[in-house]
Amino acid sequence: MQEHPLPILDWASGYSRPNARGDLAAGLTVGAMLVPQAMAYALLAGLPPEVGLYAATVPLIAYALFGSSRQLAVGPVAIVSLLTASALAPVVEQGSAAYLHAAALLAVMVGLLHLALGVGRLGFVVNFLSHSVLVGFTAAAGVIIGASQIKHLLGVSFPRQEYFLETVRELFTSLPDVHGVTFLLGLASLLALIGLKRYAPKVPAALVVVIGSVLIVRIFGLEARGVQVIGDVPSALPTFGLPTVDGSVVRSLLGAAALITVVGFMESIAVSKVYAGRHRYEVIPNQELIGLGAANVAAGLFGGYPVTGGFSRTAVNDTAGARTPMASVITAVVVLVALTFFTPLFSSLPNASLAAIIVMAVAGLIDGTEIRRIARVRRSDLIGLGTAFGATLALGIEVGIAVAVVASFLVVFARMYTPHSAVLGRVKGTTSYRNVGRFPESDAVPGVRIVRIDAAISFVNSVNVRKLILAHADDLTEQPRALVIDASGINDLDATGADMVREVLMDVAARGVALHLAGVKGPVRDVLRGAGLWSDLAGRVHASTHAAVLAIDRIIPACTDQRRSGVDERPRQTISDL
Amino acid sequence: MQEHPLPILDWASGYSRPNARGDLAAGLTVGAMLVPQAMAYALLAGLPPEVGLYAATVPLIAYALFGSSRQLAVGPVAIVSLLTASALAPVVEQGSAAYLHAAALLAVMVGLLHLALGVGRLGFVVNFLSHSVLVGFTAAAGVIIGASQIKHLLGVSFPRQEYFLETVRELFTSLPDVHGVTFLLGLASLLALIGLKRYAPKVPAALVVVIGSVLIVRIFGLEARGVQVIGDVPSALPTFGLPTVDGSVVRSLLGAAALITVVGFMESIAVSKVYAGRHRYEVIPNQELIGLGAANVAAGLFGGYPVTGGFSRTAVNDTAGARTPMASVITAVVVLVALTFFTPLFSSLPNASLAAIIVMAVAGLIDGTEIRRIARVRRSDLIGLGTAFGATLALGIEVGIAVAVVASFLVVFARMYTPHSAVLGRVKGTTSYRNVGRFPESDAVPGVRIVRIDAAISFVNSVNVRKLILAHADDLTEQPRALVIDASGINDLDATGADMVREVLMDVAARGVALHLAGVKGPVRDVLRGAGLWSDLAGRVHASTHAAVLAIDRIIPACTDQRRSGVDERPRQTISDL
Repeated sequence: MQEHPLPILDWASGYSRPNARGDLAAGLTVGAMLVPQAMAYALLAGLPPEVGLYAATVPLIAYALFGSSRQLAVGPVAIVSLLTASALAPVVEQGSAAYLHAAALLAVMVGLLHLALGVGRLGFVVNFLSHSVLVGFTAAAGVIIGASQIKHLLGVSFPRQEYFLETVRELFTSLPDVHGVTFLLGLASLLALIGLKRYAPKVPAALVVVIGSVLIVRIFGLEARGVQVIGDVPSALPTFGLPTVDGSVVRSLLGAAALITVVGFMESIAVSKVYAGRHRYEVIPNQELIGLGAANVAAGLFGGYPVTGGFSRTAVNDTAGARTPMASVITAVVVLVALTFFTPLFSSLPNASLAAIIVMAVAGLIDGTEIRRIARVRRSDLIGLGTAFGATLALGIEVGIAVAVVASFLVVFARMYTPHSAVLGRVKGTTSYRNVGRFPESDAVPGVRIVRIDAAISFVNSVNVRKLILAHADDLTEQPRALVIDASGINDLDATGADMVREVLMDVAARGVALHLAGVKGPVRDVLRGAGLWSDLAGRVHASTHAAVLAIDRIIPACTDQRRSGVDERPRQTISDL
Repeated sequence: MQEHPLPILDWASGYSRPNARGDLAAGLTVGAMLVPQAMAYALLAGLPPEVGLYAATVPLIAYALFGSSRQLAVGPVAIVSLLTASALAPVVEQGSAAYLHAAALLAVMVGLLHLALGVGRLGFVVNFLSHSVLVGFTAAAGVIIGASQIKHLLGVSFPRQEYFLETVRELFTSLPDVHGVTFLLGLASLLALIGLKRYAPKVPAALVVVIGSVLIVRIFGLEARGVQVIGDVPSALPTFGLPTVDGSVVRSLLGAAALITVVGFMESIAVSKVYAGRHRYEVIPNQELIGLGAANVAAGLFGGYPVTGGFSRTAVNDTAGARTPMASVITAVVVLVALTFFTPLFSSLPNASLAAIIVMAVAGLIDGTEIRRIARVRRSDLIGLGTAFGATLALGIEVGIAVAVVASFLVVFARMYTPHSAVLGRVKGTTSYRNVGRFPESDAVPGVRIVRIDAAISFVNSVNVRKLILAHADDLTEQPRALVIDASGINDLDATGADMVREVLMDVAARGVALHLAGVKGPVRDVLRGAGLWSDLAGRVHASTHAAVLAIDRIIPACTDQRRSGVDERPRQTISDL
C-alpha cells in the first residue's frame, strides 16, 4: 500500500478536479467548525484561545504531508486538551508565560515520542488496548469534560478540579450563585446546536452559535451585565519559535507526554481506520505515528499545544467530501484567515457558548449505540468497558487509562483462568463429536467421557485444568472408564502445564481410569516430548476423537454395539507414533 | 480431603507409634539444623540472633495446629530475612529497640495478611506466577543473599547495600582489608559443610560447624585476634508481648508486608506441594495461608520476625522421616532447649561460620537441574526465567519480583500476539487433515488453502490474525480459490475480534476468494451470531475440515478427482444451520 515514504506523493500526483471540489467543500466546512472548537478546547486546556487557533494551522499542513489517512481532521481535541490541563497544572501557573511555553514544550515532546514510536515501528502497541475498554474510557472522558464545562454554562466560577466527583460537588455548592443571563445564553446556545444538528445538519452550527452569541452580547450589552467573554484575541499569525527547554520541566512532563502520545494515537488511529475501511485504503499505524509526530512538533514550534485526529471533525470532513489531505490544508487556510481578520469579533464571544460547543462535541464520545452493540456481541466485554468507565470517572483520566489497560488484560486472563470445556457426544450417524449441551441429539458413549478443553494450558490455568480433568475422571463409574481429552483446542502448553500433565497422568491412573488424548497439536506434542511424557502416552494419542473411541473399543472389546452402530470409519494409520 | 477446620484433628486422632518414631528423628534433626540457621538468618535480617531463635519456637507449633502440610518446616528463611532487612532499613535504625518492635510488628502484619487471604479464599492468586519465573527469581535471591554474606567470610565490614552490584563493588574495594584468620575460619567452615554434606549426609553439618568453630575460637583465642563473633545471646525463653503499633510505621511497612506475604506463601506452597505429591495427600492453599498466618502472628507476639516454610529444612525433615506436624513441635522443643541451656556457648560463635551456613543454604536456591529441565521442556520459558533473574539481580528483590510477575504475563501475551497457525493437508487414505509442515505425506488440495489458527482471537491478536488470513487469501491463485479456516483452535472471540472477522469477510470477498469455516466452537458461534455475522456465513460453516472440502467440491464441481480419491465420507447433515 505504502509506495513512498511521503504519502503525499501517493495522492498529489493523481490529483484531479473531483478531488479538488470535494476537498474544497470539506476544508471550508471543517474550518468553520474548527475555529470555534479550537478556541473552546484551548480554554479547556487552560490556554488563551489563540493558542488553540495556532494549533489548528501549521500542524494540519504537517499531517497532510506525512500522514496516511485521507479524511483525518487533525487539531485540538477534547481529551488531549483535558490531559494537557492536568499535565501543566502541577508544574506551571495557569495564565503565566511559562504555562504557554510548557504547553508548546509538551507538544514537541509528544511529537518526538510519536516520531520515536513510528520510526521504531512500535505502532503495534496500539493493539494492546481492547476496543470495549477504549469505548468505556472515552465515554468517561466525555462525562468529565462535559461536567467541567457546566460551570461556564451556569456562569459560576471555581478552580479546575482534579477529580470528577469534586467538580460535581463544586457545582452543587455553586448552584445559588448561578448567573441568570449567562445560563440563558448557554441554554440558548445548546438548544441552537441541537436544533441545527437535527434540522439543518449542513449548516456549520458552531459558527452560527459563535456569530449569534457575539451579536447578542454586543447588542444587549451583556458584558456589562456580567456575562464572561473570552476577551481580546490577538490578531496575529502563528510565529516560529523554539520552546524553552528546562530539564526539570521536561522531567515532570514526561509521564503526561507519554500518556498524551498513547491516548492521542489511540483516538486518531481508531477514527482513521474507520474511514480508511469505508474508502477501501489502508492506514499504516507507523506512518500515522510519523504524521501525528510531525503535527505535534509543528504545534510546539508554532506556539500551539498537543493535537491529534478527532472523531467529530473527521466525520464532518468525510461527509463534506474530503478525498485527500488537501482538505486539511484548506481548513488550515480558513483558520489563518480567521486569525488575520476575525479575531476582533471573538473578543465578545461568551464562554457559555464555547462551553455549549464543547458539551455538544463530547456528547458524541459517549457512544450508546456502540455500548449496546458490544453488549449484544459479547456481554462479558462490558466488564472491561464498565471498569474503564468507572475507574476513569472515580480516579481521574490518567489512572483511569492505566486501570483500563490492566482491565483489558485481566478480562483476557480471567477467561484463560477458567477455561471453557465441553462434554462431547457422537452426532448420530456420523463420526463427529459435538458438545452434548448444545447438540442434545448427540449420544454419550457409555463408560467413555469425552471432554474438549478449549484453552492453551499455562501456569495461569493449569490448576483449574487439573481439577476439571480429575472431576470428570471421578464421575466415570461405568466400565471401561476411559477419559478422552479432545485436545484440538489446547493450542499451547508451558513448563508448568507439562508438570500438571505429569501429575494428572498419575492421579488418573491411581483412579483406575484410562486417559486418552485426541487431536494433540504440534507445539503441544513438542512440549510433551521435551518433558519426557510422550512415551508414557504411547498408544493413547489419537488423530481424532472417533479414532480414540474406536481404539478404546479395541482394547476393551465389551459393549461395542452402541459404538459400532454408526459409520465405521477406522483411521488407516495410527497417529500416536508419528 | 479437608475434613476439619483444624487439620491437626486429621492426623492427631490416628497418631501411631511409627509416626512418633519418624517425627522424633525428624524433629531432632531439623532442630539441630535450625538452631544455627535461625541465628544466621536473624543476622541477615539485621536482628540479634535470639530473635531468630524465638521465631523458631512458637510459630512452628502454631503452624502444626493450623497448617495442612505434614512435612513443611516453618521458621526463619533466607529470602524473607533479606526482605525483612530491606523493609526495616528505611523505617527504623538497625540495632535500636524500635527495630525489634518493627520486626515483630511486620510479622503480625504479614500474619494478618496471610489470614485475610486464607479466610477470603484468595489462595488461587498464587497461580499467577509462572513456575519458571519463580525459579529465576529464587536463583537471583540466592545470589544476592550469598553475596551479602561474603563480607563476613572475608572479615571485612561495610553497611548493607540495597543493590547487588553495589555489594559486589563494596566487596572489591574491601579486598585489601581481608582479615586473614576470619577468612581461613570461613573457608574451613564452608569446606566442612560441603564435605559433610557429600560424605556424611546424616550428620547435622551446621551444628558440627557451629560447635567446631566455637571451640576453635575459644581454644585459639581468636576473638582477641579480631575474629567477629555474634556476642552474648540472652538465655531466655520467648515471652508474649503485643508489638507497639504506630500508624506511620504500619503505613510504611504495608508494601513490604504484602511482598513478604506473597513471596513467603509462594516459597512455602511450592515446597509443601512437592512433598504432598510425594506422600499422596493434598495441601489446601487457603488452609496453608491460615497456617502460615497463625505462625507469623505467633512470631510477632513472641518477639520473633516473619517466617515461612523453607526449601532445605523441609527436605531434611522429610528425609529424616517426618510423618506429621508433630515433627515441627519437636523441632520447636529442641530450639527451646537450646535457648535455655546453650546460649552461653553461642557467644563465641564467629560470624564467618554463620555466613558459611547461609551460603550453603542459599546455594540450593540456584536450581541448575530445574533450569536445564525447563530449557528442555520449553526453551521459550527461559525468557521469563532470565528476565526474573536479571531484573532481581540488577534492580533488587522488590522490583525483581514485580518484573517477574509482569514477565510471566508478557510471555503468555507474546504467544497470544503472534498466534501459531498451520497449513493443513489431507493424510492419504483418510479424512484427517494435518499440518503439512509436520506430516509431509499429507496432500494439499489444489486451489483450496486450509489454515488452522491455534489461538483465541481477541484485541491482542486480531490485527495479526487478519494479516495471516489475508496473506493466505492472496496466495490462492488456482481455482476454486477457497480458503478453509480450521477454527477448532479458536477457543474464543471478543468484540474486537468480531469486528476483525467482519472486515476480513469483506476483504476476502473483494479478492474473489471464498472463505469457509470448519469446527467453529459454541462460544465463538455465539459471538458471531451476536455480531450479526452468522447469516453472512450461511452455508460456509462446516462440522469438519473434510466436510468443508466436500462442500466446496459440491459448489464448484470441477477438479473433483483428487478429492474423491480418498474415503468418501460425506457428513449426513449440515451443521451450518444448527
